[in-house]
Amino acid sequence: MKILSVDLGERSYPIFIGENLMADASLLAPYVKGRQVMIVTNETVAPLYLEKAQALFEGFEVNTVILPDGEQYKNLEYLNLIFDGLIENRHNRTTTLVALGGGVVGDMTGYAAASYQRGVDFIQIPTTLLSQVDSSVGGKTGVNHKLGKNMIGAFHQPNCVLIDVNSLQTLPTNELSAGLAEVIKYGLVYDLSFFDWLELSMPKLMVKDTESLIYAIETSCECKAKVVAQDEREGGIRAILNLGHTFGHAIETDQGYGEWLHGEAVATGTIMAADLSARAGWIGQSDLTRVVKIMKAAQLPTSPPKGMAPDRFKELMSVDKKVLDGKLRLVLLKSMGHAITTSDFKLTNLNATLDKFTS
Amino acid sequence: MKILSVDLGERSYPIFIGENLMADASLLAPYVKGRQVMIVTNETVAPLYLEKAQALFEGFEVNTVILPDGEQYKNLEYLNLIFDGLIENRHNRTTTLVALGGGVVGDMTGYAAASYQRGVDFIQIPTTLLSQVDSSVGGKTGVNHKLGKNMIGAFHQPNCVLIDVNSLQTLPTNELSAGLAEVIKYGLVYDLSFFDWLELSMPKLMVKDTESLIYAIETSCECKAKVVAQDEREGGIRAILNLGHTFGHAIETDQGYGEWLHGEAVATGTIMAADLSARAGWIGQSDLTRVVKIMKAAQLPTSPPKGMAPDRFKELMSVDKKVLDGKLRLVLLKSMGHAITTSDFKLTNLNATLDKFTS
Repeated sequence: MKILSVDLGERSYPIFIGENLMADASLLAPYVKGRQVMIVTNETVAPLYLEKAQALFEGFEVNTVILPDGEQYKNLEYLNLIFDGLIENRHNRTTTLVALGGGVVGDMTGYAAASYQRGVDFIQIPTTLLSQVDSSVGGKTGVNHKLGKNMIGAFHQPNCVLIDVNSLQTLPTNELSAGLAEVIKYGLVYDLSFFDWLELSMPKLMVKDTESLIYAIETSCECKAKVVAQDEREGGIRAILNLGHTFGHAIETDQGYGEWLHGEAVATGTIMAADLSARAGWIGQSDLTRVVKIMKAAQLPTSPPKGMAPDRFKELMSVDKKVLDGKLRLVLLKSMGHAITTSDFKLTNLNATLDKFTS
Repeated sequence: MKILSVDLGERSYPIFIGENLMADASLLAPYVKGRQVMIVTNETVAPLYLEKAQALFEGFEVNTVILPDGEQYKNLEYLNLIFDGLIENRHNRTTTLVALGGGVVGDMTGYAAASYQRGVDFIQIPTTLLSQVDSSVGGKTGVNHKLGKNMIGAFHQPNCVLIDVNSLQTLPTNELSAGLAEVIKYGLVYDLSFFDWLELSMPKLMVKDTESLIYAIETSCECKAKVVAQDEREGGIRAILNLGHTFGHAIETDQGYGEWLHGEAVATGTIMAADLSARAGWIGQSDLTRVVKIMKAAQLPTSPPKGMAPDRFKELMSVDKKVLDGKLRLVLLKSMGHAITTSDFKLTNLNATLDKFTS
């Protein structure tokens, strides 16, 4: 088992990464303050892992909330189901919420924990690659609003994160791919040698080779932990982790949440951001080709849904949280392995990128 | 103008108290970080003070959300109206929300500010006595759940609080009384000499004598600021400010939010807590009489609604946030001017108090 640490002073916490960790009944008990535990999961994950997760909390008073599966349920209405379960079962301020599932379950459970009685503890047990490498680490929690993704939420750090790579064996291929989009992102924004490794290792990752998956998850979490430790509330450098997300969110919002997987939208968005970076001369055409190629190798979409016009992109991008004082800021590649947040790009170049990908 | 400070390190902020402060256009501008301001108010307050509040933010981009008036709208559904307004008007992370109104508006606006894009700034302009002396200071924000009051929320401190006592001139008498219930509470839990002053000054307060109101507000806010500075997240001493609230919340929940004013429920709850304290021998019968008498002088109810049985009280009190690990904890008076949080009371005494007040 690997143990990484997210260093955030008194809010620091460990990430456990390894095989069969859900079978280790002693691992999580030290991270539960009171006697009550509420496991939040969804209809897809429950039949696979709920029993295992319950066994992790033997001797505690354990209740369960099972949400429907899908990004379209990540809203205030379904969040209320978690509060219903907590109050009906009389959970008090010492309760610990446990998120068992992917990014949607993690984001909703974390926000419920941030908000229930003005803040209780929570633990992340991410079961998808995307949530293991991204959303379960760093304390971003929240739900969508019908007019914008993740518009409502809180920064709320978990007590610990348990990543059992065995849970990836039941993950559908398209969700594996979606997770790899975020893994690739870390290489592009922060660690070029990791990107090089990913290019070589993609075939192994696509067949779920355990050793390769562990290395990819560990390196991704390490990167995320470092960036978050520097900038917990995304006042600065943390924003580089949003490479491809502004374009990606526009796609997700246009399609309605749940049509495109988040990672799929990020993959296409990353290519669009790389294209714009190439137009600025910051990366070369061959670099852009590498980005497109690795996304294809991960079986990810490389262009937006048909029919999404440039104006629609611009309309939706200007609602994105990363717009500061009316000026659109984007995460772009200053070079391969190094991203920046900037509004220093030519509108003609943005238009050219949008035209290229929407024709 | 009086300026009090709530000392919370980097989250410290001033409370301005005085006459005609809403006419001072230069007072608030230093507390607005960006260019966008969203004033949240309700249908009752808007015709009275919205124009004045807008004038405080000349030169900023000001939008408005007007909520219906009443505790029954303090829920996630109506909270969403604030998010609608923010997103539709493209407010970004540098926006400042302004709560203009009573406790419901303040709690909802504060929670919306805590949650919008994972946290933006906000300013409190409380216009009722209750919100001026209690809910606007200390950072408790939130909404109700159908099964429990203030079950969903966040600790989120304002940038500043502006208390213009002139706004009390339009306040209905029952709301003045409701605010006085919380003012009386400060005397009982923290400052016996203030309680003595209140006994003498109640006639003046009931006719809205400005000087008396300013002194009562200032002393209450000072007390709250001191307690909050010691214990921002209510791990300990802050809980004493909940005197009467566990009984009171039971009344509010039983009646449905909005039937009894919060302060009315707190007044009755405070008398019940004093009764239980007297049964423990911590305060005398004459002290209990003083508590009942001052509530009557403030035209506050001194017994729960008819038909509320002891079992109903106990059922609702055990859902209250102040129940720790299944054991009911109450704020009781160890002596006049000194409250403690305790589960050290006899069940027979609690039953006797409940019987007395529900017969």
